[in-house]
Amino acid sequence: MKTLIKNVAVYRDGKAEEGQNILIEDNRILSFPKQTENLAFDQLIDGEGMLALPGLVNAHTHVAMTLFRSYADDLALMDWLQNMIWPAEEHLDDDIVYWGSMLAFAEMIRGGTTAFCDMYMFMDSCAQAAEKAGIRGNIARGLAGVTPNGMKALEENVELFRKWDQAGNGRIRVMLGPHAPYTCPPDYLKKVRDTAEKYGIPIHIHLCETKGEVETCQSKFNMTPIALMNSIGLFDCPTLAAHCVHVTDEDIKILANKHVCVAHNPGSNLKLASGIAPVPKMRKAGITVGLGTDGASSNNKLDMFAEMRLAALIHKGATLDPFAIKAEEALQMGTEAGAKCLGYSDLGVLKEGYLADIILVDRSGWNWKPCFNSVSLAVYAGNSMDVDTVMVNGELLMRHRELLTIDAEKLSYETERVTKKLYAFKQQR
Amino acid sequence: MKTLIKNVAVYRDGKAEEGQNILIEDNRILSFPKQTENLAFDQLIDGEGMLALPGLVNAHTHVAMTLFRSYADDLALMDWLQNMIWPAEEHLDDDIVYWGSMLAFAEMIRGGTTAFCDMYMFMDSCAQAAEKAGIRGNIARGLAGVTPNGMKALEENVELFRKWDQAGNGRIRVMLGPHAPYTCPPDYLKKVRDTAEKYGIPIHIHLCETKGEVETCQSKFNMTPIALMNSIGLFDCPTLAAHCVHVTDEDIKILANKHVCVAHNPGSNLKLASGIAPVPKMRKAGITVGLGTDGASSNNKLDMFAEMRLAALIHKGATLDPFAIKAEEALQMGTEAGAKCLGYSDLGVLKEGYLADIILVDRSGWNWKPCFNSVSLAVYAGNSMDVDTVMVNGELLMRHRELLTIDAEKLSYETERVTKKLYAFKQQR
Repeated sequence: MKTLIKNVAVYRDGKAEEGQNILIEDNRILSFPKQTENLAFDQLIDGEGMLALPGLVNAHTHVAMTLFRSYADDLALMDWLQNMIWPAEEHLDDDIVYWGSMLAFAEMIRGGTTAFCDMYMFMDSCAQAAEKAGIRGNIARGLAGVTPNGMKALEENVELFRKWDQAGNGRIRVMLGPHAPYTCPPDYLKKVRDTAEKYGIPIHIHLCETKGEVETCQSKFNMTPIALMNSIGLFDCPTLAAHCVHVTDEDIKILANKHVCVAHNPGSNLKLASGIAPVPKMRKAGITVGLGTDGASSNNKLDMFAEMRLAALIHKGATLDPFAIKAEEALQMGTEAGAKCLGYSDLGVLKEGYLADIILVDRSGWNWKPCFNSVSLAVYAGNSMDVDTVMVNGELLMRHRELLTIDAEKLSYETERVTKKLYAFKQQR
Repeated sequence: MKTLIKNVAVYRDGKAEEGQNILIEDNRILSFPKQTENLAFDQLIDGEGMLALPGLVNAHTHVAMTLFRSYADDLALMDWLQNMIWPAEEHLDDDIVYWGSMLAFAEMIRGGTTAFCDMYMFMDSCAQAAEKAGIRGNIARGLAGVTPNGMKALEENVELFRKWDQAGNGRIRVMLGPHAPYTCPPDYLKKVRDTAEKYGIPIHIHLCETKGEVETCQSKFNMTPIALMNSIGLFDCPTLAAHCVHVTDEDIKILANKHVCVAHNPGSNLKLASGIAPVPKMRKAGITVGLGTDGASSNNKLDMFAEMRLAALIHKGATLDPFAIKAEEALQMGTEAGAKCLGYSDLGVLKEGYLADIILVDRSGWNWKPCFNSVSLAVYAGNSMDVDTVMVNGELLMRHRELLTIDAEKLSYETERVTKKLYAFKQQR
């Protein structure tokens, strides 16, 4: 199966080149042919006026938490988690997580996100929904060592790996999901590390999200969370650390030396008043920093255009350095760096041989006029609703803003149904 | 002329009330009738699924600067101004400013902005475009006292007031536009103040945008810019101060005592690395703080949904206070407070007798599901592209996302034409 995207602006090496063509064979980019006259292909996509970007990668989220969107806003993180989210999460089931995940996939695909990195519960259902939606995703069972079912959850995560890793034509990968140092004691994390080593499963963990978390860890272990993780040997396995808001210079050295990837979640960190991560410093130290939305409950959307804009803006304001994160750096974080966070070395760049996760952004909106620099427009003026076409693994998931793999009407109906089911406990009180 | 908006969620007193009706007579909200069966009206708008908000107010912008969008990004403010923007601005003319303004109005109306506050050049053209587009706006001639034509510009501003104040069925108002303390020496500002007093014209000025500006003023006058303005007596006239990023506690007291309104421009302040204004402090002191996009060249869009989200997010991150600016406060800044910045006491709230600037936001997108709280969704998850219908002064400017007062095809053509004309000087070098 060959697809030709004709006459499109292609984002490469930090710039947009007009009037290019992209030839896709099966799930990979075959070439960028200068001439298209004698080319054989099965499917033609007119790229006139469009900007082709690598599909956006949401490097940290909890997809089924769409169902908590606007349920509990303007609260502090621990109040929000302990008093609102955790009690409601007790009522989740496979059916609810399936449709909550599908809702997230619809929103993400509509807005140009082609891959996600998730940590949550009922992950079989999440994987089923991802397989059906055609999106790319890394999934992990959220593991809390302090709970009675900590060891059972770890076994489930291994089972998830056996069942789903490389499923969906290679789109689905599985990670281990130890929640955070404050929910996973060192002994438990050592078991996670041993499991990761034994099966070769990468790790996805929340680290240094709040000042309080770091202070508690310091007073308990006389180490920062990152130093503690390092002492346990967690970072000897490939690790993705979400947040890293409150990190010391020494922490940054450890992350860089151990090739730990970081998922920066500007919207969520701001909304929960966690703070502003020192992203320019981490990038300068050579750390791969991707971008994530976190769950919809703390954002409240899964909109990578909004996150790229935030990433490009807030670090300039926080450091008073107008070059802190440039537009092309924010775009790199939302694409190539995100792909690396998910463990891919052949994703997130429009390049021959790379996986064909491509989005076409319509530049006909007023926010794109005039267009001197498509890259800075994508980041500073771009809108997720400008996305016209979405391809993952060479398959079209959206064309002319219409979802092709998700039945929108059914999804609306099911979202309403599972929302009622999830919150039935509130009526019962 | 009576219009009935039926079965709509109405935002009032910080909450969205479902299943309401709004009756509009001529340019004002007449009532919120509980029953609509025996009502007489000329026009019916079905509000099913929609959220009615007061039209968003962009309290500080330079509309024709849309034509500099993406022309010069990722630079420091003074480099950007002196080396890129000012040289290009020398090539502006009435024709260029007319279409640059119209482009801004199309973008703003499309995204739910119904009123703007502008300071720029060739303001006759801006006013003509605003009159044609049907948008509400306060306009000021930008005044630089350090330039040879400083006094001529002040006379032009008075002429503009005579010609345009209250034009367009009261939609257009004129302010005096002294650019900033660093471009307007005290003697010149005294003349501006005298002119403002003589004719009863309010003032729109940039204040304390950068740390450098404040330091220069301190070393030159041994006063902060705000203390200097106060000593000149500028604040004895109604004043709107844009930015106020670097203000002391004493400055805040002065602003509050003198009832100076502040236009907060989070996107622009971040993009130009100016910093983060102490908005929660200013609001606590009783200052009216509206929201602005600033010019598209330093944003790069005129999207008040993006600015409301930024305002709700960045102050939480900067202060580590999750309650710094709540969703309903950001919405108040983008509506009621903005209207006050423009000198209106009967705008920006959906209330009987108030001016009928109303937008209907379509809540059918995935980003609105599920919907427990329309106010927090509007601010945190809302997207300017969700706006379906826009009414200003009782007149429809957009219906079902289609502009009614602006010819989109002609505007696209003219935008391209005047862009070429404006930048012809670059070929001539």
